[in-house]
Amino acid sequence: MKYRVGVLGGTGIVGQRMISLVTSHPWFELEFVTASEKSSGRKYGDIVKWIIEKPLPDKIAGIKVEPTHIERILEYKPDIVFSALPSSIAANIEVELAREGIVVVSNASSMRMEPDIPLINPEVNADHIDIIERQQRNRGWRGYIVKVPNCSTAILTLALKPLYDEVGLKRVVVVTMQSLSGAGLKGVPSMLILDNIIPYIGGEEEKIENETLKILGKMTRSGIEKEDFSVTASCNRVMVLEGHLENVFVETMEEIEAEEASRILREFKGNKIKRYNLPSAPREPVIVRSEDDRPQPRLDRFAGNGMSVVVGRIRRDKVLNGLKLVVLGHNTIRGAAGTALLIAELLAYRNLI
Amino acid sequence: MKYRVGVLGGTGIVGQRMISLVTSHPWFELEFVTASEKSSGRKYGDIVKWIIEKPLPDKIAGIKVEPTHIERILEYKPDIVFSALPSSIAANIEVELAREGIVVVSNASSMRMEPDIPLINPEVNADHIDIIERQQRNRGWRGYIVKVPNCSTAILTLALKPLYDEVGLKRVVVVTMQSLSGAGLKGVPSMLILDNIIPYIGGEEEKIENETLKILGKMTRSGIEKEDFSVTASCNRVMVLEGHLENVFVETMEEIEAEEASRILREFKGNKIKRYNLPSAPREPVIVRSEDDRPQPRLDRFAGNGMSVVVGRIRRDKVLNGLKLVVLGHNTIRGAAGTALLIAELLAYRNLI
Amino acid sequence: MKYRVGVLGGTGIVGQRMISLVTSHPWFELEFVTASEKSSGRKYGDIVKWIIEKPLPDKIAGIKVEPTHIERILEYKPDIVFSALPSSIAANIEVELAREGIVVVSNASSMRMEPDIPLINPEVNADHIDIIERQQRNRGWRGYIVKVPNCSTAILTLALKPLYDEVGLKRVVVVTMQSLSGAGLKGVPSMLILDNIIPYIGGEEEKIENETLKILGKMTRSGIEKEDFSVTASCNRVMVLEGHLENVFVETMEEIEAEEASRILREFKGNKIKRYNLPSAPREPVIVRSEDDRPQPRLDRFAGNGMSVVVGRIRRDKVLNGLKLVVLGHNTIRGAAGTALLIAELLAYRNLI
Amino acid sequence: MKYRVGVLGGTGIVGQRMISLVTSHPWFELEFVTASEKSSGRKYGDIVKWIIEKPLPDKIAGIKVEPTHIERILEYKPDIVFSALPSSIAANIEVELAREGIVVVSNASSMRMEPDIPLINPEVNADHIDIIERQQRNRGWRGYIVKVPNCSTAILTLALKPLYDEVGLKRVVVVTMQSLSGAGLKGVPSMLILDNIIPYIGGEEEKIENETLKILGKMTRSGIEKEDFSVTASCNRVMVLEGHLENVFVETMEEIEAEEASRILREFKGNKIKRYNLPSAPREPVIVRSEDDRPQPRLDRFAGNGMSVVVGRIRRDKVLNGLKLVVLGHNTIRGAAGTALLIAELLAYRNLI
Repeated sequence: MKYRVGVLGGTGIVGQRMISLVTSHPWFELEFVTASEKSSGRKYGDIVKWIIEKPLPDKIAGIKVEPTHIERILEYKPDIVFSALPSSIAANIEVELAREGIVVVSNASSMRMEPDIPLINPEVNADHIDIIERQQRNRGWRGYIVKVPNCSTAILTLALKPLYDEVGLKRVVVVTMQSLSGAGLKGVPSMLILDNIIPYIGGEEEKIENETLKILGKMTRSGIEKEDFSVTASCNRVMVLEGHLENVFVETMEEIEAEEASRILREFKGNKIKRYNLPSAPREPVIVRSEDDRPQPRLDRFAGNGMSVVVGRIRRDKVLNGLKLVVLGHNTIRGAAGTALLIAELLAYRNLI
Repeated sequence: MKYRVGVLGGTGIVGQRMISLVTSHPWFELEFVTASEKSSGRKYGDIVKWIIEKPLPDKIAGIKVEPTHIERILEYKPDIVFSALPSSIAANIEVELAREGIVVVSNASSMRMEPDIPLINPEVNADHIDIIERQQRNRGWRGYIVKVPNCSTAILTLALKPLYDEVGLKRVVVVTMQSLSGAGLKGVPSMLILDNIIPYIGGEEEKIENETLKILGKMTRSGIEKEDFSVTASCNRVMVLEGHLENVFVETMEEIEAEEASRILREFKGNKIKRYNLPSAPREPVIVRSEDDRPQPRLDRFAGNGMSVVVGRIRRDKVLNGLKLVVLGHNTIRGAAGTALLIAELLAYRNLI
Repeated sequence: MKYRVGVLGGTGIVGQRMISLVTSHPWFELEFVTASEKSSGRKYGDIVKWIIEKPLPDKIAGIKVEPTHIERILEYKPDIVFSALPSSIAANIEVELAREGIVVVSNASSMRMEPDIPLINPEVNADHIDIIERQQRNRGWRGYIVKVPNCSTAILTLALKPLYDEVGLKRVVVVTMQSLSGAGLKGVPSMLILDNIIPYIGGEEEKIENETLKILGKMTRSGIEKEDFSVTASCNRVMVLEGHLENVFVETMEEIEAEEASRILREFKGNKIKRYNLPSAPREPVIVRSEDDRPQPRLDRFAGNGMSVVVGRIRRDKVLNGLKLVVLGHNTIRGAAGTALLIAELLAYRNLI
Repeated sequence: MKYRVGVLGGTGIVGQRMISLVTSHPWFELEFVTASEKSSGRKYGDIVKWIIEKPLPDKIAGIKVEPTHIERILEYKPDIVFSALPSSIAANIEVELAREGIVVVSNASSMRMEPDIPLINPEVNADHIDIIERQQRNRGWRGYIVKVPNCSTAILTLALKPLYDEVGLKRVVVVTMQSLSGAGLKGVPSMLILDNIIPYIGGEEEKIENETLKILGKMTRSGIEKEDFSVTASCNRVMVLEGHLENVFVETMEEIEAEEASRILREFKGNKIKRYNLPSAPREPVIVRSEDDRPQPRLDRFAGNGMSVVVGRIRRDKVLNGLKLVVLGHNTIRGAAGTALLIAELLAYRNLI
């Protein structure tokens, strides 16, 4: 018996990724897809501009698209809904769904920083799901909401986690070079980005600086307590289809050499969730490359089926008294849809669905 | 009467830029161009893969290319030679030329860090040319060598100079996104960079970390003394034709707000060389943009005819207790050929030619 | 005394080009710019996403943008309005303006094929402006409308004209590789075109197939008579900022060798308008390159300030019993804004304004 | 028992594709890889710049690379060698190998047009392998050489075959937009192709014009007789990683409507080889798309695992009295390595190995 799954906002890039991943998933069965009013009632295959590297399965192409309305969604009696809605739309409908008893795993940025809403990157902070009980109690909901982190932050925190555990973090400076897919199907006009870089992504730096501390924060009796190191980010949009590259400088609590850092990262196997053997969990959540010129977005983004982060160029940094390194992750898989699925698997494994 | 000028290594990207700039220069007359053995004796227009945005002037197209041999060069009795040679070739020939009494302004990285070789970014450290006398005495040369900084460093130091003067620098963290032209005409195969980023440029990080301190260093009686703040760099090659973009984080000696930094940068007029009115000196060496999403390589690289650096996104940075900002400069103009010409103008103005 | 000029739809790519060209024009003075309702009343510099290679002049940045309303336009008493409006909007307003006595030179595709509307590519069919009188009589207008051809067609017909005159044309097969700018500032999302080609441009093939015959048609007493050779086109959108490249196969009436064709193209000096010495007319409307691998969009698009077409790879073609050749032109200059200005110059020279 | 296979020239793009395909092949076992002298003796994983989308298998990474010497190759006693050598090197070594009894399936262009060398695109002209016997007799070889067609030609002829069979061909006009991978790993410098098109590929047009007629030619008692329709080609290099797009105009012997052509193409199942069920043969060698804007390289190149050609935009063409259509194929799979394997499977099935 598979879990009954719906995808809200299924025509955008993250929605497409979700559908692609759900379709071949051993535990989940796609029951419905929603989209904007004007597409509802039409066949998914007729309205989507499918850009995933694998062809759209005929079965999914034939699905009738629903409007993103609470009543229609409830009719499908889903066990889980995955939300790839724009934040502004997500804010209301996700709350309504949780109130009605639905489990919502959401990529929308709304509510990510609320203290009783878990913001989960499973290999990093699976234990934060224990806040769900409090969330339901606080809000009087029968269902609940779990949030997927911002794409750059999901990638960053997975790479930082092993170092955080072993030597502690004081300061993190991160510069991102983010792919076009992060802005959605029509987000970046080609005339504005060809032979160019746009050194600004609205709201992104604040998300990285804040969400990182919540994700690496501690679960306490009174809620999730943000970690107290500090993060500063500078974000750029570059001419790459998929895969966010990050240049990271870390000041550590304990002094550490590059080789030792490399060993720690290589040995990280995903923490507590490793033994759950969840279907979407990569065997190596952090892959370390020793070549001078890796990771590279086009060559490394599908490592671990897009669920691993790839770390390279680990160097001792004397200026920050710590390390510098380069991190890459697939922004719509590890940074969105794939992590959403991994969260749902975790919830299922822990009998929370 | 114009100065007689030669360009060594005139077929590469920097060589082309130099020829393009010299050709329309009020003080300089191009007398000869050298290239590799196999091209010598042929017409420049027949061997060059001209990629400058302005067409190659017919007059230059007809110039006979010379081999890069000392005897042939001396026959032209040049006042100045501009070198765009690869480092390995530059090392010998530049020294020979200086010994024979020629003024060499060179882009090659060889000898840049030697204490009696001035490494000049004119608006930043024009006074370092006073070391020339010592260079000649030390080495028994009748001519001398002046070096143009590494491209990323020339851009960075021009943007840092006003802040350095006003509030002092403690630590600088810089991530570069460097254009293809920095690697030369055939340096980056398209198959390796399309839909991709290469997070590594051999030797570049060390150059930025070291040259910055020499350029901002002080001229003392015993030579140029490196400044003692510290710089850490991480360098990336991106899919952009021209223009290096840098995300810079600065820890300052004195606390400073973003607005004040913006004012300081705007008011910087190029220091001591301002009053010399050199032909290649941009009216505004540092241009500050207030839009959220500037500077951008394609839109801003030709600011000040490619000789200005454009700074934007000036923000207070609490993590480093300083500032973060985005800097852009044209790598083959401000970062190479244009600065070479500006140096030559400075030398001429100061009667050193 | 300069002509008073307005630009309708001044924020798009063609509008920007027009403003850029008008601003430095010896005969024209920009009096006003219109844009969509939501931008009207604001300063041009604040609403435009300026992407032209030359910076936006401060004077133009300060212009107040008007709505595209007939009353407001008439208040400015323009001598000429250049229209870069979308077809659907152009259809009405342009007619109203002509009725009110205004000279309209328009890039919009509406009405291009109507027999009393001249479709002018000045070096090709300047004589077609004689239809204006009939247009005014037919329609009872005090002003009139002249149309600029479709971008690909303007480029194609200029390259074909010399061959058409000398050896006659029977069949033309053309494949275009069209730049992004042809689709407007936001026309082509980067996610859809990076590492890709879109082999379809709505309506483009029909425009090329029909407009070519009208432009090369004859002015007769009863109107413009379409030429009776035939054209077939296949159009593709490629990852290039500016410049449309066309691979053309021509069956000629008289047999011709490649060298002879090359000579004919080289000797073409622009026909009847040559002696008018119009400011925007390029000295060489057709430039022939003899290298194997030219023309190329990035290297050749600004030939003749973007007003020349560049032809290369002229080969005898046995299959079509004629020629094959490669043609390049700047789509927003020769293919739109530049030709609009050249038309206006022609009208002024001929005392039709 | 698998066939023992070697790959000559295994580090280039076609060589990598071959190795990737052989590695997961049910009938073939990779025994050795050759490369240039300077790489020989080293491990494949250490010298290759692997750019295939699937990671390099560890087993292959560990293979010791051999020099491309006849003695070393013979020591491995291969059943088949696949050659991805440059033509100049291929010319000798392939002949030597065939003389020594080896079956050589080669991508090199040398000898492709010799009348006793079969040039095979299996779904099109599998019967041409019958010339092998004559080849061996003529030349006194114990082995033999079979050639893979030029990449653009393999794609074109597969799309033309069904139309050729049903309605006959008189004239074919084809414009190609070819991907970067066709020029090899370092073939096209990024500085020369970004924001650009190069309208020339040395030798390519002649290959398409000649090879097409041989492939569609008839096997007669005296050898392969070229078909007598005519083909003209114009070739362009574009900024796409993989996948050649072709705009094709066809004059047919019998008049045909677009819909009928579409039906014919859809129904084509690969001819005689269909019933052999060869592992690399795609279920649908020709896929017809009905959308306006397909095929597109990035979205369609992996159709049929890269072995199908995708045809779209099938339109009646009145100018040529035939059809116009757009064809896409994966140049290093269908256009090279994949077809090489399919040929080897055919030879094996027909007991020629």
